[in-house]
Amino acid sequence: MSKRIEHDFLGEREIPQDVYYGIQTLRALENFHITGIPIKSEPLFVQGLGYVKKAAALANKELGVLDPNIADYIVKASDRVINGDYNDQFLSDLIQGGAGTSVNMNANEVIANVALEMMGKKKGEYEFCHPNNHVNCSQSTNDAYPTAFRIALYKKLVEYSKILGNLADAFETKAKEFSNVLKMGRTQLQDAVPMSLGDEFGAFATTIREELARVADSKSLIAEINMGATAIGTGVNAPKGYAELVTKHLQEITNLPLQLAGDLIEATYDTGAYVQLSGVLKRTAVKLSKLCNDLRLLSSGPRCGLNEINLPPMQPGSSIMPGKVNPVIPEVVNQTAFYVIGADLTVTMAAEAGQLQLNVMEPVISFALFTSITYLEHACDTLREKCVVGITANAEHTQNMVMQSIGIVTQLNPIIGYEKSAAIAREALESGKSVHDLAVKEKKLLTQEKWDEIFTFKNMIHPTFIK
Amino acid sequence: MSKRIEHDFLGEREIPQDVYYGIQTLRALENFHITGIPIKSEPLFVQGLGYVKKAAALANKELGVLDPNIADYIVKASDRVINGDYNDQFLSDLIQGGAGTSVNMNANEVIANVALEMMGKKKGEYEFCHPNNHVNCSQSTNDAYPTAFRIALYKKLVEYSKILGNLADAFETKAKEFSNVLKMGRTQLQDAVPMSLGDEFGAFATTIREELARVADSKSLIAEINMGATAIGTGVNAPKGYAELVTKHLQEITNLPLQLAGDLIEATYDTGAYVQLSGVLKRTAVKLSKLCNDLRLLSSGPRCGLNEINLPPMQPGSSIMPGKVNPVIPEVVNQTAFYVIGADLTVTMAAEAGQLQLNVMEPVISFALFTSITYLEHACDTLREKCVVGITANAEHTQNMVMQSIGIVTQLNPIIGYEKSAAIAREALESGKSVHDLAVKEKKLLTQEKWDEIFTFKNMIHPTFIK
Amino acid sequence: MSKRIEHDFLGEREIPQDVYYGIQTLRALENFHITGIPIKSEPLFVQGLGYVKKAAALANKELGVLDPNIADYIVKASDRVINGDYNDQFLSDLIQGGAGTSVNMNANEVIANVALEMMGKKKGEYEFCHPNNHVNCSQSTNDAYPTAFRIALYKKLVEYSKILGNLADAFETKAKEFSNVLKMGRTQLQDAVPMSLGDEFGAFATTIREELARVADSKSLIAEINMGATAIGTGVNAPKGYAELVTKHLQEITNLPLQLAGDLIEATYDTGAYVQLSGVLKRTAVKLSKLCNDLRLLSSGPRCGLNEINLPPMQPGSSIMPGKVNPVIPEVVNQTAFYVIGADLTVTMAAEAGQLQLNVMEPVISFALFTSITYLEHACDTLREKCVVGITANAEHTQNMVMQSIGIVTQLNPIIGYEKSAAIAREALESGKSVHDLAVKEKKLLTQEKWDEIFTFKNMIHPTFIK
Amino acid sequence: MSKRIEHDFLGEREIPQDVYYGIQTLRALENFHITGIPIKSEPLFVQGLGYVKKAAALANKELGVLDPNIADYIVKASDRVINGDYNDQFLSDLIQGGAGTSVNMNANEVIANVALEMMGKKKGEYEFCHPNNHVNCSQSTNDAYPTAFRIALYKKLVEYSKILGNLADAFETKAKEFSNVLKMGRTQLQDAVPMSLGDEFGAFATTIREELARVADSKSLIAEINMGATAIGTGVNAPKGYAELVTKHLQEITNLPLQLAGDLIEATYDTGAYVQLSGVLKRTAVKLSKLCNDLRLLSSGPRCGLNEINLPPMQPGSSIMPGKVNPVIPEVVNQTAFYVIGADLTVTMAAEAGQLQLNVMEPVISFALFTSITYLEHACDTLREKCVVGITANAEHTQNMVMQSIGIVTQLNPIIGYEKSAAIAREALESGKSVHDLAVKEKKLLTQEKWDEIFTFKNMIHPTFIK
Repeated sequence: MSKRIEHDFLGEREIPQDVYYGIQTLRALENFHITGIPIKSEPLFVQGLGYVKKAAALANKELGVLDPNIADYIVKASDRVINGDYNDQFLSDLIQGGAGTSVNMNANEVIANVALEMMGKKKGEYEFCHPNNHVNCSQSTNDAYPTAFRIALYKKLVEYSKILGNLADAFETKAKEFSNVLKMGRTQLQDAVPMSLGDEFGAFATTIREELARVADSKSLIAEINMGATAIGTGVNAPKGYAELVTKHLQEITNLPLQLAGDLIEATYDTGAYVQLSGVLKRTAVKLSKLCNDLRLLSSGPRCGLNEINLPPMQPGSSIMPGKVNPVIPEVVNQTAFYVIGADLTVTMAAEAGQLQLNVMEPVISFALFTSITYLEHACDTLREKCVVGITANAEHTQNMVMQSIGIVTQLNPIIGYEKSAAIAREALESGKSVHDLAVKEKKLLTQEKWDEIFTFKNMIHPTFIK
Repeated sequence: MSKRIEHDFLGEREIPQDVYYGIQTLRALENFHITGIPIKSEPLFVQGLGYVKKAAALANKELGVLDPNIADYIVKASDRVINGDYNDQFLSDLIQGGAGTSVNMNANEVIANVALEMMGKKKGEYEFCHPNNHVNCSQSTNDAYPTAFRIALYKKLVEYSKILGNLADAFETKAKEFSNVLKMGRTQLQDAVPMSLGDEFGAFATTIREELARVADSKSLIAEINMGATAIGTGVNAPKGYAELVTKHLQEITNLPLQLAGDLIEATYDTGAYVQLSGVLKRTAVKLSKLCNDLRLLSSGPRCGLNEINLPPMQPGSSIMPGKVNPVIPEVVNQTAFYVIGADLTVTMAAEAGQLQLNVMEPVISFALFTSITYLEHACDTLREKCVVGITANAEHTQNMVMQSIGIVTQLNPIIGYEKSAAIAREALESGKSVHDLAVKEKKLLTQEKWDEIFTFKNMIHPTFIK
Repeated sequence: MSKRIEHDFLGEREIPQDVYYGIQTLRALENFHITGIPIKSEPLFVQGLGYVKKAAALANKELGVLDPNIADYIVKASDRVINGDYNDQFLSDLIQGGAGTSVNMNANEVIANVALEMMGKKKGEYEFCHPNNHVNCSQSTNDAYPTAFRIALYKKLVEYSKILGNLADAFETKAKEFSNVLKMGRTQLQDAVPMSLGDEFGAFATTIREELARVADSKSLIAEINMGATAIGTGVNAPKGYAELVTKHLQEITNLPLQLAGDLIEATYDTGAYVQLSGVLKRTAVKLSKLCNDLRLLSSGPRCGLNEINLPPMQPGSSIMPGKVNPVIPEVVNQTAFYVIGADLTVTMAAEAGQLQLNVMEPVISFALFTSITYLEHACDTLREKCVVGITANAEHTQNMVMQSIGIVTQLNPIIGYEKSAAIAREALESGKSVHDLAVKEKKLLTQEKWDEIFTFKNMIHPTFIK
Repeated sequence: MSKRIEHDFLGEREIPQDVYYGIQTLRALENFHITGIPIKSEPLFVQGLGYVKKAAALANKELGVLDPNIADYIVKASDRVINGDYNDQFLSDLIQGGAGTSVNMNANEVIANVALEMMGKKKGEYEFCHPNNHVNCSQSTNDAYPTAFRIALYKKLVEYSKILGNLADAFETKAKEFSNVLKMGRTQLQDAVPMSLGDEFGAFATTIREELARVADSKSLIAEINMGATAIGTGVNAPKGYAELVTKHLQEITNLPLQLAGDLIEATYDTGAYVQLSGVLKRTAVKLSKLCNDLRLLSSGPRCGLNEINLPPMQPGSSIMPGKVNPVIPEVVNQTAFYVIGADLTVTMAAEAGQLQLNVMEPVISFALFTSITYLEHACDTLREKCVVGITANAEHTQNMVMQSIGIVTQLNPIIGYEKSAAIAREALESGKSVHDLAVKEKKLLTQEKWDEIFTFKNMIHPTFIK
């Protein structure tokens, strides 16, 4: 295979002639192979790098610090990267040392070589378009890398929000379907008071839908970028006005509400936005896990459990127990949630480990956030498609359970008082008798008419105060 | 000692005549003694309970479900509790089973007995004012407890915000003081490019001040309450209109922007607001820890470290090494941060463990949040008073370090290009020579005049682009 | 109040004449007040300090580096501290900066002043017995503090092990009591195959008892001490042979199997033993939480849950729902477990934050480990006394559930094969018919005799293979 | 493409004729696609499944519950799986619902079809060799899956231990190389007392080597298996003596010290061994992170940092700062450590979520443990090869720092006492004078001869007590 020679200040290396990356990417490939998961597995990140390089070239040209001809080629080459045409050249491992320098240089090298080819030059003839001097002009890894990362995150959060919304919608649909299913509400796993299954599913919709507002909070923090900060936020080597101009270009070409940070020194090391986003993902994971725990409880049985709902059977549930079907979809969502909660700790540790003018641990933060969002997307879609839409209710059974329960005694409180109600409850528990028999027949604490007024279907599902 | 007899549906118990709590609080004291830290250690929580009971009595009176005379006495008794007069009666352990029932009953019992005394009755004569039937009227633990908790949190966050703001102000003051101290900026612990110590301290101010907006986000979520939900959110046993009315009263008497939740079923079990708040506290802890790591690094030495700043000496630093002074204040802040990060995990686990219509783990959430905020308050005040305000800079030393550094070569990039700059840097490193001597004298890559133009004090602290 | 003047190299301070601590403890009290929880709250820690100071004095005397008369008084004063007579003098906050210097100096100062009084001198006349020169002779905080901490931990683990063992015994007793209670075993919350409730409780005993071996592992790591390391492990200022001799004395006076670490440099900064111990505590917390989740599930109901067992009612369970009794004891244990899991993260963060020759974060590790063990002790005792010993079984109900279940079809596998068994299971589920009726009566896949042979009580609880 | 029809109790599906897996694996592929990482990415796990199926067939044959001819074919087919010949057929996602049923059925189906081909039958002709009735005979997912997992873990830990040992060896080699490099020891980032760089690297070797014993602890817990437990530990459908026999066969064919658990009910749900192992991995991660923090601190500079050691330059460190080289290898190890610490939380959450007779979350535990060990292996090898072996010391610089330090005053303690030493230290700090000049020349507290006796090279590196 044909090779070219490239050099950096550490020496020379041979590069296969057909690849677009250069010596620094090669060194990164040799140095980092912890996960085996390359940058290209997150195409939005590659796209983000393309946007950053394009906007920088436009600003540099406008400010006269970059030869207009070279700038134009960088813009064209960046457009190809934005379009995903060179994704296969972005190979460095997501977890890497160097604070993302290898990712930034990977982009610089690929764009330089694509531009060189467009110019009719050979790859590696960097005197005509240099990865550092031209493609990286007025930039540092320390502003280019986080900005590309944030653009990718922002776009990913847009698609993630849609998926969350779809899941909430699916619960909402079921809430309507189950609005007339009477069932026992439970607190602390003990029978409490009646409710409708529809309201229970409506609450699932509410709890997921609330996450949309939290994701929106995160997006507004993620939209704060530090282009123009260069190495440490002082803007060394960037021309006057560049920070504002490159931000404007980025807004235009990405069509995202990006904002230049007010304190570039702080913005260059601070990872608070990632911690906040990770916390939001964790919160959603916590809610999904609670919700799936509930689905598994409500569908427990079929004969020795609560058996209130049926989840669609997805696969035989046991290699030994014939006919057993398990709640495999909620189970896989629970496990995804545990992954996300663990990844939040990774983000926390990495954020705390930042020192002085830079947080060098940002690559593992990108790994944790990208995988968490992707896995949550898969989990939410799986939950919706393969579980929620197919859930059915055992309405007769749940209604029977309510009527034989002791918990309905609560609705007698306003009429006979807490203490008498409690006495009936204890006697019902010990004797096995029903609340109705004890209250109406034996103790005559209220008439059958009053009982019937209280324990209508409607009044159990949506109780009104009766005294 | 004189005793009275009280009973509940589990039996009778003797209660010392002088205490205001009753049989259910007594049982709680016997059942729960994990931490030994009582509710009264968080006076805002006791106050929150008083507010809830007062607002409920007002609403119940207005809606005609509570005898106006009894209601008035409950209001007066609640006012005494709000005023802190009975804090010593709130003794149940912060970590408890029962989802807060013992705390709610503690309030119900104390207020009933205070009201009874005001009425001229004896403690325990509950036929005149009953803990459940009257004080707890139209309420359940499941709405009263979280509402009181949220009122307490809200008020605590107000005071916490002030403390955070004071800390940011202290850094801001130092930022101005140090604005002309030139020093080396560092990325990845390696010398990078120059900056001013003032900007470094300004970034500390920025990073802390950003937390104020995050705390405000939390406050708006915490302000959502579920009064009127009663047991599981269906509002069983609460009269029509009660939820809105009690919320209005609570807004008025607390003067807080409390809002009734839109979905009371969800609001009664959801702990998302706590998870969000805990995440915000964790984020602040992460930032404080990073910041204190920096203070410790910058003050390392005195002879074999960076020695850029001096922290005020607070105590002899060693039992064996004479004259040694350690950065004890940042150290204690780091440790507080680790506590808060751990407590966030406690909140996460507790939130995930909620089942069906209630999260029974809310007491440990209250424990984690109250201690986290309190410890953070102490840590921030300590950091400000005993460290930040007394920090001094070793300006001459830091300036010398800059001028002998290699990192300043970065500022030659626009003039001589990245590759030549890198060559000079490597040679400087290997030979021990200075960048100036190599660039100006030996290699004559730029004139002394150009050098002087670039390396002005002003241009190192706030570089402008020179080509 | 009478005062004395003390000084250190930072200046002079007034000390109340009646206190035994001195200027350095005073400074610590002023500097650190994060938690408000003082060292004295862990009397074993104070005792550990006494042991360390006594052993050091004995070794110093023997090696001729400490005046024998002063050494004897230090020994006597240390004995009083070991005996707990001066616990009230150990006031510094458990979370503190300075790597424990304040705790060590607190001990040095108290012992010096107690010794001075025994000598007939006044407190503060340190020329006769000096906190640093005499009490701390041949020591540094960096060996004295962790050694005292480890002695305290070791002793605490001994008492903790007893408590764990008692809990396992209580489950064992119940396992025997419930050995003939037939019930449905469940996997993934779905009905699986029958088992005995006794075996379920026996497994609880097993799972807790396994922790004893893990605690023993921890004790052997905790028993490794670094006395003689002094400041950083080089043994500077300690006489030859001192490390071995002081360790021998400590073994004798504590009667614990303490061992001198092989690499004192590493031992002086390494916190691996604490991380391991914290991991063991976390593991126990995880098991306890799972176990309490099970107890809560099995006792769910009474009418709309599994209702297999009854937990002893400890308190009314609701302020609104009469007669409701909740599983408050398992609930408080769950919450304790969440605390311990959070505290493990605190330990992890603190351990990772150690730098170079010392881990300055050891105080927060001590806070986390002491509270975790104490809370676990309280939780285990509470669980045993107030819950496990009083659990009763609903044997008739659980047996009925088994016989009406579909899961028993598994026991037909070896006779009719997995596929036919699965077909019966599905038909039973859809039709509501029993396995018996389908297999024996309708499909005649086996005779009634064979059925009876398989479904004996004994063969369901402890199945033998029948083909 | 040719297809075959397979069915299970949920219906029929078409399977491509060339694949060895069957309908249940197909369903799993459709149901679970959270991570995209298939079982085959961990070949030891596939091998473990082969071992389990082979051992079961041998035991079943010996006990007469499986046709000897079928058993022989299952053994042969399993040998091919053990040999890795069918790794590409193990495609289900590592994170899955169903507690591993899909993995177990994947193995059952592949082995059945391989056996069928060996018999001269067509794939899918399960009447001759059935996935459930024959390959899974006397097994359940609930014993087969964890046993295969544990065999894989055990083997993985063997290779991991070698890698850890190699890393310790590399540090040991450097310890010898650096044994005569005098440097300042630091506590709390402040100058403490002198030591040798060799001892510092020796401590790194010690701290890593200690992990080998902890991994060995884990291996002994992981070696406990539950074969014969079948569905829930009662051994339903397994013939008498099977559990012991299959364990014996597994020991023989794996050559691992596997042990049958004493309480099969507990062993079938307990995940304590995974929690313990995860805790050990976390401990190693914590140590590696601390160690890499130290390497980064010690190599900080080159001009404005500690600059004690040089890490081998692996790649240009900045896209903007010429000549900058960063500690990229320790940085990537830090980040790997944060991943592992996060994964430990995932394991913790999953372990806590187990319910009743099974922990359904075991797949995510396998994901977390497999990735953690693999990433740690990569990180340790990377650290050794690309960093440790190439580290060099700046011996002259470090020695100069020691002699100009104030910390050496500690060694005067035994001669002039703590207080006078402290006074000299403070004066040195404030005046900038050296300890030597103050102690010997100005204050004449000791003679030059005494000074020379104390501050020999040998006595600073390995101090002996001089009075």
